[in-house]
Amino acid sequence: MKQVDIKQAIEKKYPEVVVLVTSIDKSGKPNVMPAGWFAFSNSEPACLTVAIGYKRYTHKLISQTKEFVVCFPSLGQEKDIEYCGEVSGAEVDKFANCNLEILPAVEVKPPLIKNSVACFECKIINMMDLADHTVFAGEIVAAHISDNKRIYNFGHRVFKTV
Amino acid sequence: MKQVDIKQAIEKKYPEVVVLVTSIDKSGKPNVMPAGWFAFSNSEPACLTVAIGYKRYTHKLISQTKEFVVCFPSLGQEKDIEYCGEVSGAEVDKFANCNLEILPAVEVKPPLIKNSVACFECKIINMMDLADHTVFAGEIVAAHISDNKRIYNFGHRVFKTV
Repeated sequence: MKQVDIKQAIEKKYPEVVVLVTSIDKSGKPNVMPAGWFAFSNSEPACLTVAIGYKRYTHKLISQTKEFVVCFPSLGQEKDIEYCGEVSGAEVDKFANCNLEILPAVEVKPPLIKNSVACFECKIINMMDLADHTVFAGEIVAAHISDNKRIYNFGHRVFKTV
Repeated sequence: MKQVDIKQAIEKKYPEVVVLVTSIDKSGKPNVMPAGWFAFSNSEPACLTVAIGYKRYTHKLISQTKEFVVCFPSLGQEKDIEYCGEVSGAEVDKFANCNLEILPAVEVKPPLIKNSVACFECKIINMMDLADHTVFAGEIVAAHISDNKRIYNFGHRVFKTV
């Protein structure tokens, strides 16, 4: 083992999980962002956590509505993941400008994304503020799957199956 | 999308990250457990989170000492990951009974694991209790890498490269 700068070591994280997180504003307009800092976090009830930067529009929406949906993206959604990570939902309607299609969720207001490998509808049960990100813990209240192939983040804008 | 039982949808999580988490008891004896519920969680300072079940011996040790090391395991450590997930450090000395070798860390007392792809030395800065797991947030205070190949958890005891 060789001691290195922390940022250099973090480059070893790839391939990393990538998920799409949907949320809605008070008027019901949906938004979506890609996130890599996702994990399951509790067994009974099943929960997951996702870390979202304070400056992200999604952070504001989830903080307001206490609901979100985590989607595992599938082969074919690579360009949409890139696009949704490059612009802010505070300024543009991402769903209007990309090929992701939404479907109604069952237990929460933010939408599912069509053709996801899996979607997890979540209600916030806890949150932990760190220096520049909040770790949102959501209880999974409903789940949906498809038979599509999941993609991962290989770094440097490369998303592919494993 | 087809709505399914939440547990069935969670099966879509594979391939999932697997890390080895080291900790020490008050006498300095090291312990290790595999964990899948890991993510980075903050940029400045770089932090990571790992969810550990309340009943795990590692939970007790991290709660006591406020330090741990997260290691990305490498090709060749598959059997050791399995072994370390099957027994409790409260009952056996895992390092004495498997092929994982430890190395001293620089900033914390829990050890590095030799031949890891990367090791992140962490000091607890926050924690969030959920129903049966605690999400421990650690600030990364030192990091180490090697050129070995990382392995992932493909489920059903299959660990391999991607």
